[in-house]
Amino acid sequence: MAKANVKEQIVSTSLDLLHSKGFNATSVQDITDAAGVRKGSFYNHFTSKEALGLEVVQRYLAAVGELAAVLHDGTLAPRARLQQYFERMIAGNAANDFHCGCLLGNFSTELSNQIPAMRSAIQQAFAGSAAVMAAVIAEGQRDGSIRSSVPAAELAAFVNDAWQGAVLRTKAEQSREPLDRFARMMLDIILS
Amino acid sequence: MAKANVKEQIVSTSLDLLHSKGFNATSVQDITDAAGVRKGSFYNHFTSKEALGLEVVQRYLAAVGELAAVLHDGTLAPRARLQQYFERMIAGNAANDFHCGCLLGNFSTELSNQIPAMRSAIQQAFAGSAAVMAAVIAEGQRDGSIRSSVPAAELAAFVNDAWQGAVLRTKAEQSREPLDRFARMMLDIILS
Repeated sequence: MAKANVKEQIVSTSLDLLHSKGFNATSVQDITDAAGVRKGSFYNHFTSKEALGLEVVQRYLAAVGELAAVLHDGTLAPRARLQQYFERMIAGNAANDFHCGCLLGNFSTELSNQIPAMRSAIQQAFAGSAAVMAAVIAEGQRDGSIRSSVPAAELAAFVNDAWQGAVLRTKAEQSREPLDRFARMMLDIILS
Repeated sequence: MAKANVKEQIVSTSLDLLHSKGFNATSVQDITDAAGVRKGSFYNHFTSKEALGLEVVQRYLAAVGELAAVLHDGTLAPRARLQQYFERMIAGNAANDFHCGCLLGNFSTELSNQIPAMRSAIQQAFAGSAAVMAAVIAEGQRDGSIRSSVPAAELAAFVNDAWQGAVLRTKAEQSREPLDRFARMMLDIILS
């Protein structure tokens, strides 16, 4: 396998493994076995499992970013953008039978107290996501379709936090109900 | 150390270690070293680290149950009971500088896809907590102090989910702000 392909194979395999099993439950050996590459080749590409973990987070964020493109779709009303974004995120959870949760949420609980560079990456990702959502909410507040009694940034941060809680519960329950409940409460109560 | 004391020493030490470092990042050796007991003695008391983890969850739930006693305090109005309960839970997070999160939430993301017995224990704990909260909310709906446009069980489940999200974010941010935001949104918007 060419060198670039080995690295790509390790990252894409690790995204699945770390998302489904978690960081500490997955060894470098698990990763190289699953990727079908020699264990020694891992350290040609990554200085540590932590370095790989940081790259996997960026890969995950790129995938979520594609789902989040709808938040920038000016042909849709602000509420519809938020609704469709979370419908896509729920479909993403359905694709793994609600067993894996959100990689960022998983790493928040497992690693943010253990790996400072991971905590920084997670904080940046959450801040970026909240900023995009706050802009959509502010637009809805201006056109009167979203509650204006709470600042857009506060609503966006709370919606993001509550989403993480819903995903955590969905993983614990292995059921979509917490995600559907989140969507109902967001649309009918929090934003309305 | 007497046999009962060794077991107690292992459980209480493990509660701290598993809460702060996580399950998979903590080895049996870490636990016996921190507890000051021989490694071999661990298996006199526990068939596996998983069995210890289940006992640690019950110990954690007993501690949370003490904080939750206020939810049963009939001398307080329903909203005040909920407010004081979450104030106590926030103080619990403050006691570890917002670094540890909720043990149930941590294990939900780290273990519910890995250890079926742990997933069952977590599901039971969440269901029990939601039932107690639903009863308080239903009482507030009857006296008109809590929104009645959403069934008490749905409100309670959402409040519990959103709390887990707030705690997850608090751990990622190592800041109390997500917990204060949760309390504001719960009292001013979700229940009102």
